[in-house]
Amino acid sequence: MNMHDLTTVESFSEEDVLHKIRLAEEFKNGKTIELTRLVYAMNLFFENSTRTHTSFEMAESRLGMRLLEFEAKTSSVTKGESLLDTVKTIDAIQTDIAVIRHPQNDYYKQLLEADLNISIVNGGDGSGQHPSQSLLDMMTIYQEFNHFDGLKIAIAGDIAHSRVARSNAMLLNKLGAEVYFAGPEAWMAEDLKAYGTFLPIDELVEKVDVMMLLRIQNERISQDTAIKFEPHEYLQEYGLTFERADRMQPTAIIMHPAPVNRGTEIESSLVDGEKSRIFKQMTNGMYMRMAILTDVLEAKGLIKGGLH
Amino acid sequence: MNMHDLTTVESFSEEDVLHKIRLAEEFKNGKTIELTRLVYAMNLFFENSTRTHTSFEMAESRLGMRLLEFEAKTSSVTKGESLLDTVKTIDAIQTDIAVIRHPQNDYYKQLLEADLNISIVNGGDGSGQHPSQSLLDMMTIYQEFNHFDGLKIAIAGDIAHSRVARSNAMLLNKLGAEVYFAGPEAWMAEDLKAYGTFLPIDELVEKVDVMMLLRIQNERISQDTAIKFEPHEYLQEYGLTFERADRMQPTAIIMHPAPVNRGTEIESSLVDGEKSRIFKQMTNGMYMRMAILTDVLEAKGLIKGGLH
Amino acid sequence: MNMHDLTTVESFSEEDVLHKIRLAEEFKNGKTIELTRLVYAMNLFFENSTRTHTSFEMAESRLGMRLLEFEAKTSSVTKGESLLDTVKTIDAIQTDIAVIRHPQNDYYKQLLEADLNISIVNGGDGSGQHPSQSLLDMMTIYQEFNHFDGLKIAIAGDIAHSRVARSNAMLLNKLGAEVYFAGPEAWMAEDLKAYGTFLPIDELVEKVDVMMLLRIQNERISQDTAIKFEPHEYLQEYGLTFERADRMQPTAIIMHPAPVNRGTEIESSLVDGEKSRIFKQMTNGMYMRMAILTDVLEAKGLIKGGLH
Repeated sequence: MNMHDLTTVESFSEEDVLHKIRLAEEFKNGKTIELTRLVYAMNLFFENSTRTHTSFEMAESRLGMRLLEFEAKTSSVTKGESLLDTVKTIDAIQTDIAVIRHPQNDYYKQLLEADLNISIVNGGDGSGQHPSQSLLDMMTIYQEFNHFDGLKIAIAGDIAHSRVARSNAMLLNKLGAEVYFAGPEAWMAEDLKAYGTFLPIDELVEKVDVMMLLRIQNERISQDTAIKFEPHEYLQEYGLTFERADRMQPTAIIMHPAPVNRGTEIESSLVDGEKSRIFKQMTNGMYMRMAILTDVLEAKGLIKGGLH
Repeated sequence: MNMHDLTTVESFSEEDVLHKIRLAEEFKNGKTIELTRLVYAMNLFFENSTRTHTSFEMAESRLGMRLLEFEAKTSSVTKGESLLDTVKTIDAIQTDIAVIRHPQNDYYKQLLEADLNISIVNGGDGSGQHPSQSLLDMMTIYQEFNHFDGLKIAIAGDIAHSRVARSNAMLLNKLGAEVYFAGPEAWMAEDLKAYGTFLPIDELVEKVDVMMLLRIQNERISQDTAIKFEPHEYLQEYGLTFERADRMQPTAIIMHPAPVNRGTEIESSLVDGEKSRIFKQMTNGMYMRMAILTDVLEAKGLIKGGLH
Repeated sequence: MNMHDLTTVESFSEEDVLHKIRLAEEFKNGKTIELTRLVYAMNLFFENSTRTHTSFEMAESRLGMRLLEFEAKTSSVTKGESLLDTVKTIDAIQTDIAVIRHPQNDYYKQLLEADLNISIVNGGDGSGQHPSQSLLDMMTIYQEFNHFDGLKIAIAGDIAHSRVARSNAMLLNKLGAEVYFAGPEAWMAEDLKAYGTFLPIDELVEKVDVMMLLRIQNERISQDTAIKFEPHEYLQEYGLTFERADRMQPTAIIMHPAPVNRGTEIESSLVDGEKSRIFKQMTNGMYMRMAILTDVLEAKGLIKGGLH
């Protein structure tokens, strides 16, 4: 497959996922690469982020790339410049890779159509895809169970608005896992029903291998006309309480893309507990982003001696 | 001439311009320099920018300098600290070069008067000068025609508020080009009449070698009491339409400092068309900024073996 | 003492202070260190800053560390993520050192209690401590007088809200200096009376060796119900006027943590005058921050061959 850009995992095969996991594990075990020349990356984040932004920065730096700062709020975007013209600009000054997070679904399609040298790595598009998050989630699951086939995985919360839910549900289906969804029915996405069964969280906690929680915006639940709750009420109805966590399988794990609203979608101390892989996900994220960028560098012929 | 700072091109001779173009071309052809020690640059942008900011970053990095981040919005400027005191601060911590964009005309004069070690490179001052833009424009014209003498160059749009118009008109005069201005008469600057003739764009398109368009703020034309238009009406009256572009000389080129308001000062697809040098200007900009910084580094004795 | 973190100077002994000053002086004289591997620092500034932020950046870079950008305003803090979870995140991606400025007093206590690998360096906490500023102030005083014992030092201005006043008063007491406070009585802090005598500035100017002024917010003095003044009136009543500066000892010096409100707490031209050490403080600050970070690097075993 073309690795010049990484914008979606929709077309990923099982082998593509396992390749990325193996490469990320190699970086975790100390692998290094050497570049053929100075390589420049720019991170264009048009939405707020801590984890994705800083771990791409760290990954770029650990691979020996030079980082150029781009701040959406002080760029010419404020003068009305389009994303395409902004990316054409940073292409014109010979930036090699752009990591982009943007609120518009599929923003990357117009960029791929334009004939640019710069590679596009998607750091999240609207409620569309979040490929680096999906791949680090797959890595975290694989580290735990060493396979995907037959695993039962629940994705719980604000499904409809979550690019993580969408990317992960698709990929897990392809990898042979059984996907379940939970949360308020009003927040379920019609198109995702093809990928899994929607059930109350109380029916899921006992049977799943992975309980993957999504971030709930407190403003949303307290103002949404379809579902109105105080955060602690949401926790009781739809979240992971101590009581529910106690009913989970001994080998089952808790995941969350973070930032976590402690006390809303999950009881605070469970975040730091034994079953949680939430901080491990973040560490994996850095190695997975190194793997993602490495495949792009390889496709551009920028790795000395190639990637072996 | 003193190269310790670069704040204006007003006193530039033809030889000064050609020297900068030659040096920029050398960088385009792969020239590298070696520094005598770690050299620190800081970019202080008090106005929004994508092109100037990122291409100075890229130029600094390619020259082997270390970049320190400065963000106006989270600096002590928000506590009322003056520009002079801010620059004295970064001088005190031994930053070598400051690239500054600031809304106040001639802001750099007080900085040059203060006895500072730090070099000042002007990234644009109010409606005053924008020397790096002017020099990259000269480079782009020179690449095309290999001379300036007798070239006919139109600058069209919001002349009065444009630091690009002012810098370029002065420099082109000195280089022997014939300068013309176009646009709404209310937006013409009285003091620039010494540098060129003001004519309707329809009289200019057929005879000029370069059609240099300026950025029009849509808010401005729709609210300005002296000239009130919708963007597409402005285009018909004063902008570069397909019809006007078709009447241009076969060898004539289109330039724009960008960001472009596609559909206001120029028909959108002309930006990406055959006559456009707009993205080439951006690439040249990076090399020209390397040339500008190199002359400053040379004046400070920071280039190993000097500059040959 | 544990040098893994530097969050307060409260427990510093005289030897601890002198050690830091000696180390900073060594860096001033060209000392360099070599790191055992790539070391990553991140500066998390939740309050505006020019001096502290840029001089930590410069210090990190001069020590050979790699910097990762963190911008509070575009981080997940805006989505309600707590400081602890943010720091756990950057710990998870294996950042080595976090320099943090945060408006909450003692913010660092919860971070030290969490079991993190990342080292915490306090860049200022609310009205609590500002250890790097205190140590650079001690360095500046020591350079001038070569001892602390018996020195008379006035701290004048908005004592109650100043973390600099608090840190410095405590440390100077421990070092054997005589501390005095001046300024509006309403702005004196009750708990600081144990560390020095509160007197009118007119009684102090003639006898002190160091006149250390604090920054006064103009909004504050013109709106504070306890003290209402125009800036120039404040200067006459409580600030350092020419007349008062003339009455200072010939060997006495003027200090200020900056940014300075020229014309409010001090007559503008005195800032740049002979008695002023204000810009020297800034230069010292970079070397002192190198010393602070070096002790942290040493405690983490990251200096090749250790620190001699």
